[in-house]
Amino acid sequence: MTIDVERIVRSVDHTLLRTDATTEEIRKLCDEAVKYQTASVCIPPAYADEAVAYLAKKAQEAADAGDEKRAKPVPVCVVIGFPNGYSTAASKAFETRDAIRRGVCEIDTVINVGFVKNGRYDAILEELRQIREAAGNHVMKVIIETCLLTQEEKIRMCDIVTRSGADFIKTSTGFSRSGATPEDVKLLAEHVGTGVRVKAAGGIHTLEEAQNYLDLGASRLGTSSIIKLLEEKN
Amino acid sequence: MTIDVERIVRSVDHTLLRTDATTEEIRKLCDEAVKYQTASVCIPPAYADEAVAYLAKKAQEAADAGDEKRAKPVPVCVVIGFPNGYSTAASKAFETRDAIRRGVCEIDTVINVGFVKNGRYDAILEELRQIREAAGNHVMKVIIETCLLTQEEKIRMCDIVTRSGADFIKTSTGFSRSGATPEDVKLLAEHVGTGVRVKAAGGIHTLEEAQNYLDLGASRLGTSSIIKLLEEKN
Repeated sequence: MTIDVERIVRSVDHTLLRTDATTEEIRKLCDEAVKYQTASVCIPPAYADEAVAYLAKKAQEAADAGDEKRAKPVPVCVVIGFPNGYSTAASKAFETRDAIRRGVCEIDTVINVGFVKNGRYDAILEELRQIREAAGNHVMKVIIETCLLTQEEKIRMCDIVTRSGADFIKTSTGFSRSGATPEDVKLLAEHVGTGVRVKAAGGIHTLEEAQNYLDLGASRLGTSSIIKLLEEKN
Repeated sequence: MTIDVERIVRSVDHTLLRTDATTEEIRKLCDEAVKYQTASVCIPPAYADEAVAYLAKKAQEAADAGDEKRAKPVPVCVVIGFPNGYSTAASKAFETRDAIRRGVCEIDTVINVGFVKNGRYDAILEELRQIREAAGNHVMKVIIETCLLTQEEKIRMCDIVTRSGADFIKTSTGFSRSGATPEDVKLLAEHVGTGVRVKAAGGIHTLEEAQNYLDLGASRLGTSSIIKLLEEKN
Protein backbone atom coordinates (compact mmCIF):
# COMPACT_ATOMS: atom_id res chain seq x y z
CA MET A 1 0.00 0.00 0.00
CA THR A 2 1.31 3.42 -0.98
CA ILE A 3 0.21 6.09 1.48
CA ASP A 4 -0.59 9.38 -0.20
CA VAL A 5 -0.77 11.75 2.77
CA GLU A 6 -1.67 14.74 0.64
CA ARG A 7 -4.63 12.92 -0.89
CA ILE A 8 -5.75 11.68 2.53
CA VAL A 9 -5.64 15.19 4.01
CA ARG A 10 -7.57 16.62 1.04
CA SER A 11 -10.26 13.98 1.68
CA VAL A 12 -10.66 14.55 5.41
CA ASP A 13 -13.76 16.15 6.90
CA HIS A 14 -11.94 17.23 10.05
CA THR A 15 -14.51 16.30 12.66
CA LEU A 16 -15.48 17.29 16.20
CA LEU A 17 -18.91 16.11 17.28
CA ARG A 18 -18.53 15.44 21.01
CA THR A 19 -21.55 16.79 22.90
CA ASP A 20 -19.34 18.77 25.27
CA ALA A 21 -17.06 20.35 22.65
CA THR A 22 -16.21 23.97 23.47
CA THR A 23 -15.58 27.07 21.37
CA GLU A 24 -11.84 26.73 22.03
CA GLU A 25 -11.84 23.17 20.70
CA ILE A 26 -13.82 24.20 17.61
CA ARG A 27 -11.30 26.99 16.92
CA LYS A 28 -8.40 24.57 17.31
CA LEU A 29 -10.14 22.23 14.85
CA CYS A 30 -10.54 25.14 12.41
CA ASP A 31 -6.89 26.14 12.81
CA GLU A 32 -5.79 22.61 12.00
CA ALA A 33 -8.15 22.46 9.01
CA VAL A 34 -6.67 25.71 7.68
CA LYS A 35 -3.10 24.53 8.24
CA TYR A 36 -3.62 21.20 6.47
CA GLN A 37 -6.33 22.39 4.05
CA THR A 38 -8.77 19.57 4.78
CA ALA A 39 -11.94 19.13 2.71
CA SER A 40 -14.03 20.67 5.51
CA VAL A 41 -14.57 20.95 9.24
CA CYS A 42 -17.50 18.80 10.37
CA ILE A 43 -19.10 20.26 13.51
CA PRO A 44 -22.39 20.68 15.42
CA PRO A 45 -24.91 23.17 13.93
CA ALA A 46 -24.77 25.25 17.13
CA TYR A 47 -21.18 26.20 16.23
CA ALA A 48 -21.92 27.06 12.57
CA ASP A 49 -21.95 30.85 13.04
CA GLU A 50 -18.70 30.94 14.96
CA ALA A 51 -16.86 28.55 12.62
CA VAL A 52 -18.01 30.31 9.45
CA ALA A 53 -16.88 33.70 10.80
CA TYR A 54 -13.62 32.34 12.18
CA LEU A 55 -12.66 30.54 8.95
CA ALA A 56 -13.55 33.60 6.85
CA LYS A 57 -11.28 35.70 9.04
CA LYS A 58 -8.45 33.17 8.77
CA ALA A 59 -8.80 33.10 4.97
CA GLN A 60 -8.70 36.90 4.82
CA GLU A 61 -5.57 36.94 6.99
CA ALA A 62 -3.95 34.37 4.69
CA ALA A 63 -4.89 36.40 1.60
CA ASP A 64 -3.46 39.54 3.18
CA ALA A 65 -0.25 37.64 3.90
CA GLY A 66 -0.01 36.41 0.30
CA ASP A 67 -0.70 32.79 1.32
CA GLU A 68 -2.74 31.93 -1.80
CA LYS A 69 -3.19 28.30 -0.77
CA ARG A 70 -5.17 29.33 2.31
CA ALA A 71 -6.95 32.39 0.89
CA LYS A 72 -10.23 30.51 0.41
CA PRO A 73 -12.14 29.62 3.60
CA VAL A 74 -12.25 25.94 4.57
CA PRO A 75 -15.89 24.86 4.05
CA VAL A 76 -18.02 24.30 7.14
CA CYS A 77 -20.05 21.08 7.28
CA VAL A 78 -22.73 20.50 9.94
CA VAL A 79 -24.75 17.46 10.90
CA ILE A 80 -28.54 17.30 10.48
CA GLY A 81 -30.99 15.12 12.46
CA PHE A 82 -27.86 13.81 14.09
CA PRO A 83 -27.09 11.19 15.28
CA ASN A 84 -30.38 9.34 15.75
CA GLY A 85 -32.03 10.33 12.46
CA TYR A 86 -35.58 10.24 13.82
CA SER A 87 -36.57 13.89 13.84
CA THR A 88 -39.30 14.69 11.31
CA ALA A 89 -38.61 15.44 7.64
CA ALA A 90 -39.89 18.97 8.28
CA SER A 91 -37.38 19.44 11.10
CA LYS A 92 -34.47 18.10 9.07
CA ALA A 93 -35.38 20.40 6.15
CA PHE A 94 -35.64 23.38 8.52
CA GLU A 95 -32.33 22.51 10.16
CA THR A 96 -30.72 22.31 6.71
CA ARG A 97 -32.12 25.70 5.64
CA ASP A 98 -31.04 27.19 8.96
CA ALA A 99 -27.49 25.88 8.41
CA ILE A 100 -27.22 27.13 4.82
CA ARG A 101 -28.44 30.57 5.95
CA ARG A 102 -25.54 30.64 8.42
CA GLY A 103 -22.99 30.12 5.65
CA VAL A 104 -22.55 26.37 5.93
CA CYS A 105 -21.38 24.70 2.68
CA GLU A 106 -22.05 21.04 3.40
CA ILE A 107 -24.57 19.03 5.41
CA ASP A 108 -24.41 15.44 6.66
CA THR A 109 -27.93 14.16 7.35
CA VAL A 110 -28.96 10.88 8.97
CA ILE A 111 -31.71 8.62 7.60
CA ASN A 112 -34.48 7.23 9.79
CA VAL A 113 -33.28 3.67 10.31
CA GLY A 114 -36.65 2.64 11.79
CA PHE A 115 -38.25 3.53 8.45
CA VAL A 116 -35.76 1.22 6.70
CA LYS A 117 -36.75 -1.58 9.06
CA ASN A 118 -40.40 -0.92 8.13
CA GLY A 119 -39.57 -0.89 4.39
CA ARG A 120 -40.79 2.72 4.16
CA TYR A 121 -38.36 3.62 1.39
CA ASP A 122 -40.80 6.05 -0.21
CA ALA A 123 -40.89 8.09 3.01
CA ILE A 124 -37.09 8.08 3.18
CA LEU A 125 -36.78 9.21 -0.45
CA GLU A 126 -39.38 11.96 0.06
CA GLU A 127 -37.53 13.18 3.17
CA LEU A 128 -34.18 13.21 1.35
CA ARG A 129 -35.74 15.17 -1.53
CA GLN A 130 -36.99 17.79 0.92
CA ILE A 131 -33.50 18.05 2.40
CA ARG A 132 -31.99 18.19 -1.10
CA GLU A 133 -34.26 21.12 -1.91
CA ALA A 134 -33.39 22.85 1.37
CA ALA A 135 -29.65 22.35 0.74
CA GLY A 136 -29.81 23.97 -2.70
CA ASN A 137 -26.54 23.53 -4.56
CA HIS A 138 -24.58 22.82 -1.40
CA VAL A 139 -22.95 19.47 -0.73
CA MET A 140 -25.37 16.92 0.78
CA LYS A 141 -24.20 13.68 2.39
CA VAL A 142 -26.55 10.98 3.61
CA ILE A 143 -25.55 8.82 6.57
CA ILE A 144 -27.16 5.38 6.37
CA GLU A 145 -25.66 3.91 9.60
CA THR A 146 -24.40 0.73 7.98
CA CYS A 147 -23.86 -1.10 11.30
CA LEU A 148 -27.66 -1.28 11.78
CA LEU A 149 -28.53 -2.43 8.24
CA THR A 150 -28.56 -5.77 6.44
CA GLN A 151 -26.67 -6.17 3.14
CA GLU A 152 -29.96 -5.91 1.26
CA GLU A 153 -30.93 -2.71 3.11
CA LYS A 154 -27.53 -1.14 2.39
CA ILE A 155 -27.88 -1.87 -1.33
CA ARG A 156 -31.44 -0.55 -1.32
CA MET A 157 -30.23 2.66 0.34
CA CYS A 158 -27.59 3.12 -2.38
CA ASP A 159 -30.47 3.34 -4.87
CA ILE A 160 -32.57 5.69 -2.68
CA VAL A 161 -29.64 8.02 -1.96
CA THR A 162 -28.77 8.11 -5.66
CA ARG A 163 -32.37 8.96 -6.61
CA SER A 164 -32.52 11.72 -3.96
CA GLY A 165 -29.84 13.69 -5.77
CA ALA A 166 -27.46 13.63 -2.80
CA ASP A 167 -23.74 14.10 -3.40
CA PHE A 168 -22.46 11.49 -0.98
CA ILE A 169 -23.52 8.35 0.82
CA LYS A 170 -21.83 8.07 4.21
CA THR A 171 -21.37 4.94 6.28
CA SER A 172 -21.77 6.00 9.91
CA THR A 173 -22.48 8.63 12.52
CA GLY A 174 -19.77 7.38 14.88
CA PHE A 175 -22.45 7.28 17.62
CA SER A 176 -23.94 3.84 16.97
CA ARG A 177 -22.55 0.35 17.51
CA SER A 178 -19.66 0.69 15.09
CA GLY A 179 -18.26 2.73 12.22
CA ALA A 180 -17.04 2.17 8.67
CA THR A 181 -15.70 -1.19 7.53
CA PRO A 182 -13.73 -1.95 4.35
CA GLU A 183 -16.51 -4.33 3.25
CA ASP A 184 -19.19 -1.64 3.57
CA VAL A 185 -17.17 1.03 1.76
CA LYS A 186 -16.54 -1.40 -1.09
CA LEU A 187 -20.24 -2.34 -1.19
CA LEU A 188 -21.44 1.27 -1.27
CA ALA A 189 -18.87 2.26 -3.92
CA GLU A 190 -20.09 -0.61 -6.11
CA HIS A 191 -23.80 0.16 -5.74
CA VAL A 192 -24.24 3.95 -5.77
CA GLY A 193 -25.13 5.59 -9.06
CA THR A 194 -22.99 7.94 -11.16
CA GLY A 195 -22.24 11.21 -9.41
CA VAL A 196 -22.67 9.87 -5.90
CA ARG A 197 -19.47 9.53 -3.92
CA VAL A 198 -18.73 7.60 -0.72
CA LYS A 199 -17.72 8.98 2.67
CA ALA A 200 -16.25 6.55 5.20
CA ALA A 201 -16.66 7.62 8.82
CA GLY A 202 -16.35 6.24 12.30
CA GLY A 203 -13.27 4.59 13.76
CA ILE A 204 -10.68 5.80 11.21
CA HIS A 205 -7.55 6.14 13.31
CA THR A 206 -4.49 5.43 11.13
CA LEU A 207 -3.09 6.55 7.77
CA GLU A 208 -3.22 2.92 6.62
CA GLU A 209 -6.96 2.72 7.34
CA ALA A 210 -7.51 6.07 5.64
CA GLN A 211 -5.57 5.05 2.53
CA ASN A 212 -7.35 1.70 2.42
CA TYR A 213 -10.76 3.40 2.38
CA LEU A 214 -9.64 5.69 -0.44
CA ASP A 215 -8.33 2.71 -2.39
CA LEU A 216 -11.67 0.94 -1.89
CA GLY A 217 -13.56 3.85 -3.43
CA ALA A 218 -14.17 6.42 -0.69
CA SER A 219 -13.71 10.12 -1.62
CA ARG A 220 -14.16 11.56 1.85
CA LEU A 221 -13.11 10.47 5.32
CA GLY A 222 -14.89 11.56 8.47
CA THR A 223 -12.35 11.42 11.25
CA SER A 224 -11.09 13.25 14.31
CA SER A 225 -7.82 11.32 14.44
CA ILE A 226 -5.89 11.74 11.19
CA ILE A 227 -4.95 15.42 11.51
CA LYS A 228 -4.18 14.91 15.20
CA LEU A 229 -1.84 12.12 14.17
CA LEU A 230 -0.06 14.33 11.62
CA GLU A 231 0.23 17.09 14.23
CA GLU A 232 1.87 14.67 16.65
CA LYS A 233 4.32 13.52 13.94
CA ASN A 234 5.48 17.08 13.28
CA MET B 1 -38.67 0.50 51.27
CA THR B 2 -42.37 0.19 50.41
CA ILE B 3 -42.89 -0.28 46.70
CA ASP B 4 -45.96 1.55 45.42
CA VAL B 5 -46.40 0.00 41.97
CA GLU B 6 -49.40 2.16 41.13
CA ARG B 7 -47.46 5.36 41.85
CA ILE B 8 -44.46 4.09 39.89
CA VAL B 9 -46.60 3.29 36.85
CA ARG B 10 -48.32 6.69 37.01
CA SER B 11 -44.85 8.31 36.98
CA VAL B 12 -43.43 6.39 34.02
CA ASP B 13 -42.77 8.01 30.66
CA HIS B 14 -42.91 4.71 28.80
CA THR B 15 -39.94 5.12 26.50
CA LEU B 16 -38.71 3.79 23.17
CA LEU B 17 -35.90 5.78 21.60
CA ARG B 18 -33.82 3.18 19.78
CA THR B 19 -32.82 4.49 16.34
CA ASP B 20 -34.17 1.39 14.61
CA ALA B 21 -37.54 1.26 16.39
CA THR B 22 -40.37 0.27 14.04
CA THR B 23 -44.05 1.21 13.82
CA GLU B 24 -44.99 -2.16 15.32
CA GLU B 25 -42.77 -1.54 18.34
CA ILE B 26 -44.21 1.96 18.80
CA ARG B 27 -47.75 0.51 18.71
CA LYS B 28 -46.82 -2.14 21.26
CA LEU B 29 -45.40 0.62 23.47
CA CYS B 30 -48.66 2.56 23.10
CA ASP B 31 -50.75 -0.53 23.89
CA GLU B 32 -48.75 -1.08 27.09
CA ALA B 33 -49.06 2.60 28.03
CA VAL B 34 -52.84 2.40 27.59
CA LYS B 35 -53.08 -0.82 29.58
CA TYR B 36 -51.05 0.49 32.52
CA GLN B 37 -52.00 4.18 32.10
CA THR B 38 -48.45 5.53 32.25
CA ALA B 39 -47.78 9.27 32.40
CA SER B 40 -46.88 9.29 28.69
CA VAL B 41 -45.18 7.48 25.86
CA CYS B 42 -41.78 9.00 25.09
CA ILE B 43 -40.85 8.44 21.44
CA PRO B 44 -38.98 9.90 18.43
CA PRO B 45 -40.61 12.94 16.72
CA ALA B 46 -40.86 10.98 13.46
CA TYR B 47 -43.47 8.74 15.13
CA ALA B 48 -45.54 11.58 16.63
CA ASP B 49 -48.30 11.53 14.00
CA GLU B 50 -48.78 7.78 14.19
CA ALA B 51 -48.72 7.61 18.00
CA VAL B 52 -51.11 10.54 18.46
CA ALA B 53 -53.63 9.00 16.02
CA TYR B 54 -53.23 5.51 17.46
CA LEU B 55 -53.67 6.62 21.08
CA ALA B 56 -56.70 8.75 20.17
CA LYS B 57 -58.26 5.71 18.50
CA LYS B 58 -57.53 3.52 21.53
CA ALA B 59 -59.08 6.10 23.86
CA GLN B 60 -62.19 6.29 21.69
CA GLU B 61 -62.49 2.51 21.70
CA ALA B 62 -62.16 2.49 25.49
CA ALA B 63 -64.80 5.22 25.83
CA ASP B 64 -67.14 3.28 23.54
CA ALA B 65 -66.61 0.19 25.70
CA GLY B 66 -67.37 2.14 28.89
CA ASP B 67 -63.77 1.88 30.12
CA GLU B 68 -63.70 5.33 31.74
CA LYS B 69 -60.16 4.89 33.08
CA ARG B 70 -58.77 4.65 29.54
CA ALA B 71 -61.13 7.08 27.81
CA LYS B 72 -58.56 9.88 27.74
CA PRO B 73 -55.61 9.41 25.35
CA VAL B 74 -52.21 8.73 26.90
CA PRO B 75 -50.13 11.87 26.24
CA VAL B 76 -47.40 11.64 23.60
CA CYS B 77 -43.96 13.01 24.53
CA VAL B 78 -41.22 13.50 21.94
CA VAL B 79 -37.55 14.35 22.24
CA ILE B 80 -36.09 17.61 20.87
CA GLY B 81 -32.48 18.23 19.80
CA PHE B 82 -31.93 14.70 20.97
CA PRO B 83 -29.64 13.23 22.15
CA ASN B 84 -26.63 15.46 21.44
CA GLY B 85 -28.27 18.81 22.21
CA TYR B 86 -26.15 20.80 19.77
CA SER B 87 -28.62 21.76 17.10
CA THR B 88 -29.31 25.50 16.99
CA ALA B 89 -31.87 27.22 19.24
CA ALA B 90 -33.86 28.02 16.09
CA SER B 91 -33.95 24.34 15.11
CA LYS B 92 -34.99 23.21 18.59
CA ALA B 93 -37.78 25.80 18.66
CA PHE B 94 -38.95 24.73 15.19
CA GLU B 95 -38.85 21.07 16.18
CA THR B 96 -40.93 21.88 19.27
CA ARG B 97 -43.53 23.81 17.27
CA ASP B 98 -43.63 21.01 14.70
CA ALA B 99 -44.27 18.48 17.48
CA ILE B 100 -47.02 20.50 19.17
CA ARG B 101 -48.71 20.96 15.77
CA ARG B 102 -48.82 17.17 15.47
CA GLY B 103 -50.70 16.79 18.75
CA VAL B 104 -47.78 16.08 21.05
CA CYS B 105 -48.41 17.05 24.72
CA GLU B 106 -44.91 16.96 26.16
CA ILE B 107 -41.38 17.62 24.92
CA ASP B 108 -38.03 16.57 26.36
CA THR B 109 -35.28 18.86 25.08
CA VAL B 110 -31.52 18.53 25.55
CA ILE B 111 -29.28 21.43 26.55
CA ASN B 112 -26.05 22.23 24.71
CA VAL B 113 -23.45 20.77 27.09
CA GLY B 114 -20.61 22.49 25.23
CA PHE B 115 -22.21 25.83 26.10
CA VAL B 116 -22.18 24.82 29.80
CA LYS B 117 -18.47 24.01 29.50
CA ASN B 118 -17.98 27.51 28.03
CA GLY B 119 -20.04 29.11 30.81
CA ARG B 120 -22.51 30.42 28.21
CA TYR B 121 -25.47 30.21 30.59
CA ASP B 122 -27.15 33.25 29.01
CA ALA B 123 -27.26 31.47 25.65
CA ILE B 124 -28.69 28.35 27.30
CA LEU B 125 -31.38 30.38 29.09
CA GLU B 126 -32.27 32.26 25.91
CA GLU B 127 -32.57 28.96 24.00
CA LEU B 128 -34.78 27.42 26.70
CA ARG B 129 -37.01 30.50 26.66
CA GLN B 130 -37.47 30.14 22.90
CA ILE B 131 -38.39 26.49 23.38
CA ARG B 132 -40.72 27.43 26.27
CA GLU B 133 -42.51 29.85 23.97
CA ALA B 134 -42.72 27.27 21.19
CA ALA B 135 -44.12 24.67 23.61
CA GLY B 136 -46.91 26.96 24.78
CA ASN B 137 -48.74 25.48 27.75
CA HIS B 138 -47.51 21.98 27.04
CA VAL B 139 -45.19 20.10 29.38
CA MET B 140 -41.52 20.97 28.84
CA LYS B 141 -38.68 18.90 30.29
CA VAL B 142 -35.04 19.89 30.08
CA ILE B 143 -32.37 17.19 29.94
CA ILE B 144 -29.09 18.41 31.41
CA GLU B 145 -27.06 15.17 30.90
CA THR B 146 -25.77 14.99 34.47
CA CYS B 147 -23.01 12.48 33.67
CA LEU B 148 -21.12 15.17 31.72
CA LEU B 149 -21.50 17.95 34.33
CA THR B 150 -19.67 18.91 37.51
CA GLN B 151 -21.62 19.40 40.76
CA GLU B 152 -21.37 23.16 40.31
CA GLU B 153 -22.65 22.97 36.73
CA LYS B 154 -25.61 20.79 37.79
CA ILE B 155 -26.59 23.30 40.49
CA ARG B 156 -26.20 26.17 38.06
CA MET B 157 -28.47 24.37 35.58
CA CYS B 158 -31.15 23.96 38.27
CA ASP B 159 -31.30 27.76 38.41
CA ILE B 160 -31.31 28.21 34.62
CA VAL B 161 -34.00 25.57 34.08
CA THR B 162 -36.13 27.14 36.81
CA ARG B 163 -35.78 30.61 35.27
CA SER B 164 -36.68 29.26 31.80
CA GLY B 165 -40.16 28.33 33.00
CA ALA B 166 -39.71 24.64 32.20
CA ASP B 167 -41.85 22.08 34.02
CA PHE B 168 -39.17 19.47 34.63
CA ILE B 169 -35.45 19.05 34.88
CA LYS B 170 -34.36 15.63 33.62
CA THR B 171 -31.10 13.84 34.40
CA SER B 172 -30.13 12.01 31.23
CA THR B 173 -30.72 11.12 27.60
CA GLY B 174 -29.75 7.49 28.06
CA PHE B 175 -27.34 7.92 25.13
CA SER B 176 -24.31 9.33 26.97
CA ARG B 177 -21.83 7.73 29.36
CA SER B 178 -24.38 6.92 32.07
CA GLY B 179 -27.90 7.67 33.32
CA ALA B 180 -29.58 8.81 36.52
CA THR B 181 -27.96 8.28 39.92
CA PRO B 182 -29.63 8.63 43.36
CA GLU B 183 -27.12 11.37 44.23
CA ASP B 184 -28.02 13.43 41.18
CA VAL B 185 -31.78 13.08 41.62
CA LYS B 186 -31.43 14.19 45.24
CA LEU B 187 -29.24 17.13 44.20
CA LEU B 188 -31.65 18.31 41.50
CA ALA B 189 -34.69 17.94 43.79
CA GLU B 190 -32.92 20.08 46.38
CA HIS B 191 -31.87 22.85 43.99
CA VAL B 192 -34.71 23.39 41.50
CA GLY B 193 -37.17 26.19 42.21
CA THR B 194 -40.83 25.86 43.13
CA GLY B 195 -42.92 24.39 40.35
CA VAL B 196 -40.08 22.53 38.69
CA ARG B 197 -40.16 18.78 39.08
CA VAL B 198 -37.50 16.15 38.52
CA LYS B 199 -37.43 13.36 35.95
CA ALA B 200 -34.95 10.54 36.47
CA ALA B 201 -33.98 8.71 33.30
CA GLY B 202 -31.41 6.26 32.00
CA GLY B 203 -30.67 2.87 33.48
CA ILE B 204 -33.83 2.42 35.58
CA HIS B 205 -34.39 -1.32 35.44
CA THR B 206 -36.07 -2.45 38.70
CA LEU B 207 -39.06 -1.46 40.83
CA GLU B 208 -36.67 -0.84 43.73
CA GLU B 209 -34.67 1.67 41.69
CA ALA B 210 -37.90 3.32 40.49
CA GLN B 211 -39.29 3.62 44.03
CA ASN B 212 -35.96 4.93 45.30
CA TYR B 213 -35.96 7.74 42.73
CA LEU B 214 -39.52 8.70 43.67
CA ASP B 215 -38.58 8.68 47.35
CA LEU B 216 -35.59 10.94 46.59
CA GLY B 217 -37.85 13.51 44.93
CA ALA B 218 -38.39 12.46 41.32
CA SER B 219 -41.92 12.86 39.87
CA ARG B 220 -41.29 11.17 36.54
CA LEU B 221 -39.27 8.18 35.45
CA GLY B 222 -37.96 7.74 31.92
CA THR B 223 -37.61 4.00 31.39
CA SER B 224 -38.14 1.25 28.86
CA SER B 225 -37.87 -1.52 31.45
CA ILE B 226 -40.47 -1.05 34.18
CA ILE B 227 -43.61 -1.82 32.16
CA LYS B 228 -41.83 -4.70 30.44
CA LEU B 229 -41.02 -6.07 33.88
CA LEU B 230 -44.66 -5.82 34.99
CA GLU B 231 -45.77 -7.49 31.76
CA GLU B 232 -43.40 -10.41 32.41
CA LYS B 233 -44.72 -10.75 35.97
CA ASN B 234 -48.30 -11.06 34.76
